[in-house]
Amino acid sequence: MAIEGKSEQNAGRIRLGMVGGGRDAFIGGVHRIASRIDDRFELVAGAFSSTPEKSKASGADLGLDQSRVYDDFTAMAKREARLKDGIDAVAIVTPNHMHYPVAREFLKRGIHVICDKPLTATLGEAKKMVAAAEKSDAVFVLTHNYTGYPMVRQAREMVAAGELGTLRVVQAEYPQDWLTEPLEQTGMKQAAWRTDPAQSGAGGCIGDIGTHAFNLASFVSGLELDELCAELTSFVDRRRVDDNANVMLRFKGGARGMLWSSQVAPGNENALKLRVYGEKGGLEWSQEDPNYLWFTPLGEPKRLITRGGAGSGEAAARATRVPPGHPEGYLEGFATIYSEAAEAIHAAQAGESVSSDVVYPTVQDGLIGVAFVDACVRSSGRNGAWVSLNL
Amino acid sequence: MAIEGKSEQNAGRIRLGMVGGGRDAFIGGVHRIASRIDDRFELVAGAFSSTPEKSKASGADLGLDQSRVYDDFTAMAKREARLKDGIDAVAIVTPNHMHYPVAREFLKRGIHVICDKPLTATLGEAKKMVAAAEKSDAVFVLTHNYTGYPMVRQAREMVAAGELGTLRVVQAEYPQDWLTEPLEQTGMKQAAWRTDPAQSGAGGCIGDIGTHAFNLASFVSGLELDELCAELTSFVDRRRVDDNANVMLRFKGGARGMLWSSQVAPGNENALKLRVYGEKGGLEWSQEDPNYLWFTPLGEPKRLITRGGAGSGEAAARATRVPPGHPEGYLEGFATIYSEAAEAIHAAQAGESVSSDVVYPTVQDGLIGVAFVDACVRSSGRNGAWVSLNL
Amino acid sequence: MAIEGKSEQNAGRIRLGMVGGGRDAFIGGVHRIASRIDDRFELVAGAFSSTPEKSKASGADLGLDQSRVYDDFTAMAKREARLKDGIDAVAIVTPNHMHYPVAREFLKRGIHVICDKPLTATLGEAKKMVAAAEKSDAVFVLTHNYTGYPMVRQAREMVAAGELGTLRVVQAEYPQDWLTEPLEQTGMKQAAWRTDPAQSGAGGCIGDIGTHAFNLASFVSGLELDELCAELTSFVDRRRVDDNANVMLRFKGGARGMLWSSQVAPGNENALKLRVYGEKGGLEWSQEDPNYLWFTPLGEPKRLITRGGAGSGEAAARATRVPPGHPEGYLEGFATIYSEAAEAIHAAQAGESVSSDVVYPTVQDGLIGVAFVDACVRSSGRNGAWVSLNL
Amino acid sequence: MAIEGKSEQNAGRIRLGMVGGGRDAFIGGVHRIASRIDDRFELVAGAFSSTPEKSKASGADLGLDQSRVYDDFTAMAKREARLKDGIDAVAIVTPNHMHYPVAREFLKRGIHVICDKPLTATLGEAKKMVAAAEKSDAVFVLTHNYTGYPMVRQAREMVAAGELGTLRVVQAEYPQDWLTEPLEQTGMKQAAWRTDPAQSGAGGCIGDIGTHAFNLASFVSGLELDELCAELTSFVDRRRVDDNANVMLRFKGGARGMLWSSQVAPGNENALKLRVYGEKGGLEWSQEDPNYLWFTPLGEPKRLITRGGAGSGEAAARATRVPPGHPEGYLEGFATIYSEAAEAIHAAQAGESVSSDVVYPTVQDGLIGVAFVDACVRSSGRNGAWVSLNL
Repeated sequence: MAIEGKSEQNAGRIRLGMVGGGRDAFIGGVHRIASRIDDRFELVAGAFSSTPEKSKASGADLGLDQSRVYDDFTAMAKREARLKDGIDAVAIVTPNHMHYPVAREFLKRGIHVICDKPLTATLGEAKKMVAAAEKSDAVFVLTHNYTGYPMVRQAREMVAAGELGTLRVVQAEYPQDWLTEPLEQTGMKQAAWRTDPAQSGAGGCIGDIGTHAFNLASFVSGLELDELCAELTSFVDRRRVDDNANVMLRFKGGARGMLWSSQVAPGNENALKLRVYGEKGGLEWSQEDPNYLWFTPLGEPKRLITRGGAGSGEAAARATRVPPGHPEGYLEGFATIYSEAAEAIHAAQAGESVSSDVVYPTVQDGLIGVAFVDACVRSSGRNGAWVSLNL
Repeated sequence: MAIEGKSEQNAGRIRLGMVGGGRDAFIGGVHRIASRIDDRFELVAGAFSSTPEKSKASGADLGLDQSRVYDDFTAMAKREARLKDGIDAVAIVTPNHMHYPVAREFLKRGIHVICDKPLTATLGEAKKMVAAAEKSDAVFVLTHNYTGYPMVRQAREMVAAGELGTLRVVQAEYPQDWLTEPLEQTGMKQAAWRTDPAQSGAGGCIGDIGTHAFNLASFVSGLELDELCAELTSFVDRRRVDDNANVMLRFKGGARGMLWSSQVAPGNENALKLRVYGEKGGLEWSQEDPNYLWFTPLGEPKRLITRGGAGSGEAAARATRVPPGHPEGYLEGFATIYSEAAEAIHAAQAGESVSSDVVYPTVQDGLIGVAFVDACVRSSGRNGAWVSLNL
Repeated sequence: MAIEGKSEQNAGRIRLGMVGGGRDAFIGGVHRIASRIDDRFELVAGAFSSTPEKSKASGADLGLDQSRVYDDFTAMAKREARLKDGIDAVAIVTPNHMHYPVAREFLKRGIHVICDKPLTATLGEAKKMVAAAEKSDAVFVLTHNYTGYPMVRQAREMVAAGELGTLRVVQAEYPQDWLTEPLEQTGMKQAAWRTDPAQSGAGGCIGDIGTHAFNLASFVSGLELDELCAELTSFVDRRRVDDNANVMLRFKGGARGMLWSSQVAPGNENALKLRVYGEKGGLEWSQEDPNYLWFTPLGEPKRLITRGGAGSGEAAARATRVPPGHPEGYLEGFATIYSEAAEAIHAAQAGESVSSDVVYPTVQDGLIGVAFVDACVRSSGRNGAWVSLNL
Repeated sequence: MAIEGKSEQNAGRIRLGMVGGGRDAFIGGVHRIASRIDDRFELVAGAFSSTPEKSKASGADLGLDQSRVYDDFTAMAKREARLKDGIDAVAIVTPNHMHYPVAREFLKRGIHVICDKPLTATLGEAKKMVAAAEKSDAVFVLTHNYTGYPMVRQAREMVAAGELGTLRVVQAEYPQDWLTEPLEQTGMKQAAWRTDPAQSGAGGCIGDIGTHAFNLASFVSGLELDELCAELTSFVDRRRVDDNANVMLRFKGGARGMLWSSQVAPGNENALKLRVYGEKGGLEWSQEDPNYLWFTPLGEPKRLITRGGAGSGEAAARATRVPPGHPEGYLEGFATIYSEAAEAIHAAQAGESVSSDVVYPTVQDGLIGVAFVDACVRSSGRNGAWVSLNL
């Protein structure tokens, strides 16, 4: 991804299709920009909406050949699989409950899948998704995009290198404030489907953003969850899912943690934050200021490691495009996941294995995420009993 | 406390004695400075140590008349009570297990007590302390000093005025790092007594600093705890008390919270932080940057309220000495508790009731704090069961 | 640029060529990513280096048709102008002294120019560039990219709306540290040409980054310079240009300012910062944390306006792709300049005038920038005499 | 000053008098608190106002013996000099133009002087003050209090130890906003005398706070000024002194600097800031967050050194009372100057020389400060000509 000529070497753009992401969606546009940043993909087809006119209009907006714009993802999968220059990969950016039905159609035809998170709306579907992915030769990439930030890669690398020693404490949080009021009752589409259990799954806030926090904590710490206890709350009147989640975590090996996610915390826009403490040092990272990583080796002054600056290592460099002091953001982190997807797809096409430096979230990570939400819901339903993931 | 002439009006300095706080103590010196800042007290007597030479030497350091330096707090209480110019008040700055035995001797002689926190080492003693204080005519002030910070007063005032609406979420944390290694095994006195259940009580980190965080959350939010579930952990080998505490909180009326305290989190010196969120807004305050209070009215930009600056109100002004931009710190916050103690003592001496603006922590707050620690220990012992305070 | 379908409406991608930006360049890659983010351009041709093999290799890296890869920019201009699907626009990303010779060839053939800053290496050339641009029908866009940041647009909009009242004080600074040591003597290419007066012009640091700071100050404040006095210093032994510049500014209408740029200030990566104060309020913005704008209305608490958050207006919204809390960075700001270039080019192609919302830096802004550098060099040569721009 | 018993060893409190600092003053109260914090002084006398009733009332507020409250500083000096337990030292906290007349009376009687800054209102008086101080056996301490902050001491120690290498660049600034409007025209006393040349001297903002910034820069960097050029501006209608000052600095040895002070910069309360850059590293310190010092060794990550934390050395420790993470503030920094005054006075009383660790600002520093203001006024009057200090 780096700007150096080497990594701009273009092995040919991957032909990308998209399911979901029509005119009034948010995440579809994000995926499209992310796919373009490193120039590894070209969007050539899409089923942007199940409403035919809306899908057509969206395709037209994007300058697509109208023959490649569908209103039925199954039809899209079938036809694209047969086309000589059909899509190599599909990006799935629908509400959660459609992830599995859509992915299945493409996976079974060997089309690579880049799927938004969480993996599915239910744990049952998540397990089916794993099975479908394992059965397919296609690559499956889950866009837990926050793992794409360079300083998250840096943190992971430092933990893995033992710079913190044995980990003891993990504190993850992801507060937002956009659902402080009953926005879903105003007809706002983003709020409506995210608070509808049929579309989002049983977890509300915990599924929408709590999973990101848990995924991030796991990605950086390398720790595996043993048990959790959770209390999910719906503060807003008539809201059907949780909008605040308090979770305590026990990791295998003895580390302990807490996770807080909320969508009713005024003053928080998208304040995902991770802190990890070990016997020898501590790390702190905030998504809203992503180019910084605080590192304190025990007994030394706190250090501000900047993306690409002194102290920033190989893992961050691989996910970096511009020099230190030139901030990269959310879209670049997302683009890193896409670039890693491209590397995996090219490797698959060449029958080779992909570099171990490529660490995008997998279908297995997705299953763990859905199991995490499921466990939180179960624990909360049992008054905060300690439960394990049902994998 | 303000610098304006009015509040420097000196109704005569209160004669203060001290128990504990000898040469190698930390908090004794803090109390002495705090007592001087607003010029309401004069230290005239002390039992600084049970080792006679040490007490004498400490008294000499402080320029006290040697006849007023004791090695036995009971002797001190007895003699000072009889002296014509004996102490009006005593500051108790011993390890926790001595708070009650010491306070009792002074309370029963009508000498006002300013006691360090936590109130006692055990819940049983805490209840006895309440009884002793209620039985006495003396004023009892507990130095949960963080409540003395002007912006904490500001936060409390804003919550009480309804600027946040009904509260939903409270997040309190108090991480430190100084016990990351087994300092108590090196003979370091501060570490030794704080990790000795016989001196500190059953709670380690949760008693030493978790109580501060809980007290602060209660002071600002005005919420009353319903239940908690806790997990206390001792990460350091052979440590006898917890050094990390994860707690989930249920408040009466439905608000939910989390509290984390740790003494093994590298990169945290004394990072007490409180966040409170309601239906209409959110507040954030950090002890290490105490002159700032972040306030977000829902749907408006975040505001940085500064001590004494625009948006800072009456409650903060009463606890403020210098203009905005001239930072006040830990000692000034502590001094505010002392000044409020002085106001209460003068009122008591005059047979008047003290102003409702005076809001120092009371013996009752101390009981709640000890009950909080007790509840955390009980819950943790029962694998994180929800428990109520045993008041 | 917004993610909403509307602005993704694609009027057909503009065919883009590039001069400069071969394998070991930095800014060429930045321009390429910026041109892709909003999907308005497609890179189809280039003269990436005057070394034929290097240009070919760079073109191959980028997947270009080899027939469109040139080693001579004049040949490129001639041939592309004749091709039926020849380039619509060219991005010029060479060292400064080549900007004018290159631009001239394209401008005179009606090919739109997107040129890196500063406009030229000398004031004489800058005036010729203005003449060439005025004579041409082509659009000329100068990539003073920092004007593309949403919160810079927000600041400009607020000043223009009178939210600060009459301006009094402008403080601009742009410190870096990468030239603290004589990097140019190690053969590092970026350092070599930037410290070579023949390639960069007479200004070193003041030309490379001081112009950015001055352009930003002008863009936001709307103020016009009356006079300046400057002291340029070369701290590093044998460096041929300034690496630190102190400048005092007098604006027409009475406002006063200072500008500091440095490349020898350890601890500063790319710390462009602007502060503007008026009778009614103040604004502060830092490039390294670009999603925030501090605004203090006189007598009110400081407000943190976030990109897309409460208080963020129309001008910022037009330059924004993702919701508040999802940070955008350097590349997105750069992309906004490209998208505005696209709007201007499409308007030109349609014979229409472009919207007044489109405010990219022009050739005239570029002339002012070069005149600013020239004035700083002149003033410094006269021991800091006050001088005017030689426009 | 440290809390350790050793430094609380009390060699007997110094008897302190005060001139100025009556009921509606600001800085008098600050001096009184500062004198108490480390318990080295006892206020026993004062001429708080030339209005007899006001002086009496102020003395009564402070609990002084009325026989020691004067309305005439000369009478005070005479009588206190004769008293057996007369004052050892006097704190002078009047408007600037009275510093010299008052100090003279005490100096000539051998009474130690602690004088607020700037030294005097005019350069002529400053020179007389130096002569008077040199002629006297008394200690003379100038309360450029910002030099008392622990992290300022730390910065000075690091520069002196060569951790930054040869210094190149110094950036000092001190913006405030309280005079953005013509407060002096409302009768507000603080504003009135500070904008009256007869009381404050020819410099307004540059004398009131610019001198602090210059003193701080000199104290930390150890550099000596060679020349300066300045532009002083009065933005507020009918204001008689400058309210904004832009200054460029040339130091002996080749370092260059800028200094900005303003009292019309909305959003700045008391934002004194210093940045120092050398060949090997950089330092940054802000008065409003005084417990932090940013240090970047060239080529390493930025480090956050905290007061008393890792990386904080001996000089800071000597000026520190409480552990890291327990913020000290403005009053503690001020108290350090008082404690150093006490050390110097005790040494003088004992006929000994004071430790080289005692580095309070001297009468000579005060002369340099007044000469700095004088030079700024002269340079500005000559359209920013370079001028030297007239020492």
